[in-house]
Amino acid sequence: MTTSSSRISRAPAYSRVEMTQIVLPGDANALGTAFGGRVMQWVDIAAAVAARRHSGGVAVTASIDSLQFVHPVRIGDVIVLQSLVNRAWRTSMEVGVRVECEEEGDHERAFHAATAYLTFVAVDHQGKPREVPQIAPESDEDRRRYDEAARRREMRLGERA
Amino acid sequence: MTTSSSRISRAPAYSRVEMTQIVLPGDANALGTAFGGRVMQWVDIAAAVAARRHSGGVAVTASIDSLQFVHPVRIGDVIVLQSLVNRAWRTSMEVGVRVECEEEGDHERAFHAATAYLTFVAVDHQGKPREVPQIAPESDEDRRRYDEAARRREMRLGERA
Amino acid sequence: MTTSSSRISRAPAYSRVEMTQIVLPGDANALGTAFGGRVMQWVDIAAAVAARRHSGGVAVTASIDSLQFVHPVRIGDVIVLQSLVNRAWRTSMEVGVRVECEEEGDHERAFHAATAYLTFVAVDHQGKPREVPQIAPESDEDRRRYDEAARRREMRLGERA
Amino acid sequence: MTTSSSRISRAPAYSRVEMTQIVLPGDANALGTAFGGRVMQWVDIAAAVAARRHSGGVAVTASIDSLQFVHPVRIGDVIVLQSLVNRAWRTSMEVGVRVECEEEGDHERAFHAATAYLTFVAVDHQGKPREVPQIAPESDEDRRRYDEAARRREMRLGERA
Amino acid sequence: MTTSSSRISRAPAYSRVEMTQIVLPGDANALGTAFGGRVMQWVDIAAAVAARRHSGGVAVTASIDSLQFVHPVRIGDVIVLQSLVNRAWRTSMEVGVRVECEEEGDHERAFHAATAYLTFVAVDHQGKPREVPQIAPESDEDRRRYDEAARRREMRLGERA
Amino acid sequence: MTTSSSRISRAPAYSRVEMTQIVLPGDANALGTAFGGRVMQWVDIAAAVAARRHSGGVAVTASIDSLQFVHPVRIGDVIVLQSLVNRAWRTSMEVGVRVECEEEGDHERAFHAATAYLTFVAVDHQGKPREVPQIAPESDEDRRRYDEAARRREMRLGERA
Repeated sequence: MTTSSSRISRAPAYSRVEMTQIVLPGDANALGTAFGGRVMQWVDIAAAVAARRHSGGVAVTASIDSLQFVHPVRIGDVIVLQSLVNRAWRTSMEVGVRVECEEEGDHERAFHAATAYLTFVAVDHQGKPREVPQIAPESDEDRRRYDEAARRREMRLGERA
Repeated sequence: MTTSSSRISRAPAYSRVEMTQIVLPGDANALGTAFGGRVMQWVDIAAAVAARRHSGGVAVTASIDSLQFVHPVRIGDVIVLQSLVNRAWRTSMEVGVRVECEEEGDHERAFHAATAYLTFVAVDHQGKPREVPQIAPESDEDRRRYDEAARRREMRLGERA
Repeated sequence: MTTSSSRISRAPAYSRVEMTQIVLPGDANALGTAFGGRVMQWVDIAAAVAARRHSGGVAVTASIDSLQFVHPVRIGDVIVLQSLVNRAWRTSMEVGVRVECEEEGDHERAFHAATAYLTFVAVDHQGKPREVPQIAPESDEDRRRYDEAARRREMRLGERA
Repeated sequence: MTTSSSRISRAPAYSRVEMTQIVLPGDANALGTAFGGRVMQWVDIAAAVAARRHSGGVAVTASIDSLQFVHPVRIGDVIVLQSLVNRAWRTSMEVGVRVECEEEGDHERAFHAATAYLTFVAVDHQGKPREVPQIAPESDEDRRRYDEAARRREMRLGERA
Repeated sequence: MTTSSSRISRAPAYSRVEMTQIVLPGDANALGTAFGGRVMQWVDIAAAVAARRHSGGVAVTASIDSLQFVHPVRIGDVIVLQSLVNRAWRTSMEVGVRVECEEEGDHERAFHAATAYLTFVAVDHQGKPREVPQIAPESDEDRRRYDEAARRREMRLGERA
Repeated sequence: MTTSSSRISRAPAYSRVEMTQIVLPGDANALGTAFGGRVMQWVDIAAAVAARRHSGGVAVTASIDSLQFVHPVRIGDVIVLQSLVNRAWRTSMEVGVRVECEEEGDHERAFHAATAYLTFVAVDHQGKPREVPQIAPESDEDRRRYDEAARRREMRLGERA
């Protein structure tokens, strides 16, 4: 399926990335919880890989549009980040990242720790923006994220104007 | 000046933080530019210190509400982050961070590299939220940021509803 | 399925872990390839999480029984580690880790970069060994790994004797 | 003001740098205090930026002439480093760094944690030394540091002879 | 002494490397012991330097053939790694690493913490394998390690076949 | 041999430490040479271990009295630090560190890269200073360092007065 004669499209599942980490004392603040900046770094890498998969090349972070921490992450927890491309425009993509956390590595008791939306721009070897494939939503869930990505973008453009 | 009989207020300048870094090869991606996650980590620390100064104790990152990269940062650049508290609510604060960059350390040719807004929650030693002083804007610039912080918050609450 | 009246057993798939990383200049040696020690660190974390999932608690590295690098990993590559528990004994487990690499993040051109086998021991909060569930192989692939894990262990015990 | 027909001079304030950090568990030793080597690393970066600002280009550390720790820095403390160029010679500069520490981020209770003096050499892109602007002291404080920098240098040259 | 008309040989002592570290909180897991991946990273560097010394140039990790942890290493411990080349083939070398640990830095009470064997391949500036000097064992200990290295290699080749 | 009835003394060789590192891109600045702050960090750890060995317990950095870089260290170089205690007073010790560098790991072409002198204070588990053994110089070299340590200390005390 393509959205125009010249550009291919891909399902969100094509770009899906999973990244697992253990929260070590070196990742934590004085309260024994993962400090925000370290989680952001992991979120950025998980999102960057999804953007590379979708676009077939290097992509750079243009913005974090939102990153909500909903539950603290503690030293010793296992943290699992899942990311995929929600929607693509000409050279940019919205990537969604869901962060879950497992106390002592027990994935039957995983809880939701954070959610993030980031915008990436695909670039060539000189760092110039390049065109990316479009997103072809497959499931209802895909379509919900596809529609919300457009709404979030409009809101951001409105906010800046 | 106080906004209620029981709570003190502070000017944004009270919480002002400056953080300087040199972008080293270990902070960069394969294109020779600072990778997003590292800049986010610096932004989070600069913002966390402003939130601590304003609230007089520990504060944890509740959300990144927006982080826009407007110019790439290269290996060898000096990066300067400035943060302060724009507005405070009962237990939370919006912190603004401006990131500037100096090629080869020449601060007469500094350029704007990124802007971020984050929300922090002040916590006590058990990690429970605690009340924070209010913001008393002093300059026109302070008042503009104070008003915009409220507008950004309403927009976020609307978005979630 | 259980192997004794008192101990549960789990399929290898229960412990499966995926970890994704981008190889940054700070992970590389002077040749522009990921240095061995950094890949080992990622392998250890991916394996530790699989051991935690299977055993439902903390597990510590007892040994790396083999780690073969079959292809160099370059700066800018995306690296994907997959791990699962191959076999369990009373308090110890063999974890297998497969490392694949994607040039510029293109997972249609992934190649095999390394394979590792590690032994972990499950421990309680005092660091004392504790019993772990047994492995119940489901697929032919599971059974092959289950049998090979026993052979590798016998060889190691023979070697030390 | 210039010290010769061909070379410009700059006030110490021109090179002033402020760097803020939070001391995290990953920066500390087993006693819960920042380990010396980490503070040295921050001191070196704060000083290097001051040397770059004054000299308008890259500068490399030639020596630490003294670094006195006067108060331990604990996990959770905010640390603020301030640096500026005290005096310049043909291609080298003495940079002074003052390290202050704020318990729980309260800058009304800041205490003095360390003082350092370092010598930097300005280099061109081939790493060859290049001439630097001279220092034109403005305040009495500037003049005191300017004079002391000369005395420290004489003492070092005497010590080596 | 040479093993052929065209190739020099060197005693194991020629490549001997000693590396010392303090285990800091940033190197530890939630149990307060050094996490496996960090020790592996130190082992890899200590082994890589021995391989460089023996071969007179860059060498890359081909495999970890075994790494046994025999005693946990705790935060605050001093860790000493000793490595040397046990045996060399045409372009590859087996390096042995012994890890000892000193509680509170007291080397009269050092204990054995881990032993590792790794295979390195010497490479030229294009990353192509290059010939290495042979090992000429001097002591009985050298000869024991020289013989065992051959036995370990045969076992590995047999295991893969 | 003891210098008083109640305190033991030790030869400098008792505290000798060797630490080896490979300079990786993550340790370097934009010029491809190890940045000062990283070398300082290694110097501090090598010195801290010597102080622990001599004093039989934890010791903290009181000051860097001098650290001279005499030759730049490049990415890919092997760096070897050697440290020992030159002289001890009641609770403090002067540690000398010599940094050598081997291009491509060839220790027949090692060159001198830096020299440092640091003062450490031995502390107990509450961080309180504790008495340390005295230094009993054995060789002429030991005696030269022993005498120079006293001269450096007098000069520092004079400088502060």
